Amino acid sequence: MSTFPITHRNEIKRVSKRANYKKSTIYKIIDEALYCHVGFTQEKQPFVIPTMHARMEDKIILHGSKTSRLIKHIEAGNEVCIAITLLDGLVLARSAFHHSMNYRSVVIFGRGNSIETDDEKRLALQALMEHMLPGRWADVRKPNQEELNSTGVVSIPIDDASAKIRTGPPVDDPEDDDLLVWTGLLPFHQRAEDPVNDPRIGKNVPIPEYIIHSHR
Amino acid sequence: MSTFPITHRNEIKRVSKRANYKKSTIYKIIDEALYCHVGFTQEKQPFVIPTMHARMEDKIILHGSKTSRLIKHIEAGNEVCIAITLLDGLVLARSAFHHSMNYRSVVIFGRGNSIETDDEKRLALQALMEHMLPGRWADVRKPNQEELNSTGVVSIPIDDASAKIRTGPPVDDPEDDDLLVWTGLLPFHQRAEDPVNDPRIGKNVPIPEYIIHSHR
Repeated sequence: MSTFPITHRNEIKRVSKRANYKKSTIYKIIDEALYCHVGFTQEKQPFVIPTMHARMEDKIILHGSKTSRLIKHIEAGNEVCIAITLLDGLVLARSAFHHSMNYRSVVIFGRGNSIETDDEKRLALQALMEHMLPGRWADVRKPNQEELNSTGVVSIPIDDASAKIRTGPPVDDPEDDDLLVWTGLLPFHQRAEDPVNDPRIGKNVPIPEYIIHSHR
Repeated sequence: MSTFPITHRNEIKRVSKRANYKKSTIYKIIDEALYCHVGFTQEKQPFVIPTMHARMEDKIILHGSKTSRLIKHIEAGNEVCIAITLLDGLVLARSAFHHSMNYRSVVIFGRGNSIETDDEKRLALQALMEHMLPGRWADVRKPNQEELNSTGVVSIPIDDASAKIRTGPPVDDPEDDDLLVWTGLLPFHQRAEDPVNDPRIGKNVPIPEYIIHSHR
């Protein structure tokens, strides 16, 4: 299946020309974003929590303390909505009304499962770290038994998802064409700056190549 | 009141030393972010939608098509949770377990009101545009009656809110201090790049100063 079926949940109703249900498009957005926002409901109260994520094939991986509200809620089998948003720029039109943003966003609906065995947990934690910074896992001290025990890891299948994407220049009304207002895009990019040494680092530890070239 | 009271909803339970309930801290994060994620519940299903926002004194302003699910839901008086997140960098420790992100985030809980009069709507739309790009409102064609009628604008009081902030270098376990792993921060910043002319723009419209210097 290379396209997600349109359901009552994932259907993009507003500005449906921006909708995209292709798996390859959706996975690319998930993989590029460094964090997501997870929505859930407890006693009729909506909550939204930002957290880092990774994708392992057709699943989203989240983690947190075993005692965290979010992890316990997902482990208990409750519905979540995961939103992932990449801002690409401001869209500056001649009229206030036609101003917009260029963005690539994904929403995923579903219920998760707890990852229980130590081996599966380690693989999921590796995926989270490599998502954050490719190359890092090989370099660091791996989780010990106590750390594994205190960490909750959950997976949510990506099977009810959609993307919404706006690209391109502003679209003004033809009757505004003669207004002398500058129009165009102000592009945005979330970029890493130069790495900053931990003040406690030893003198003989150089900055690894995978950090210097990451996220540029 | 310069600090929000801690309630059962806004209390930061995980890593409570990162909690901040100060109004000035919370408003600064709201004002710096270009968009938020709004969580709400319909028929027990959680939804999260990214959208732009502005702050007018003690209120969050959101807007959208009169027909949008989110706007209709807020106008009907339902609870929302608004999450605002700024990523400041990756925190790279010696152990996988102590990796983290530096961030400034806010959550706001509450119910909104529809902004009904044209004058109030115009002020709110001006706030949204000036939040997106200070200086822009004076330059553009203002909303006409038809555009005002088709736009829903809501305000949500900021009275049940909290911030969660992580700053500073990684914190490793003392027994890992001798590991030869590079540790430090990889800072992130969401920056505007050079403005891009609309291909349809007239030749005599220069790029305004307020765009050139914005979001750098």
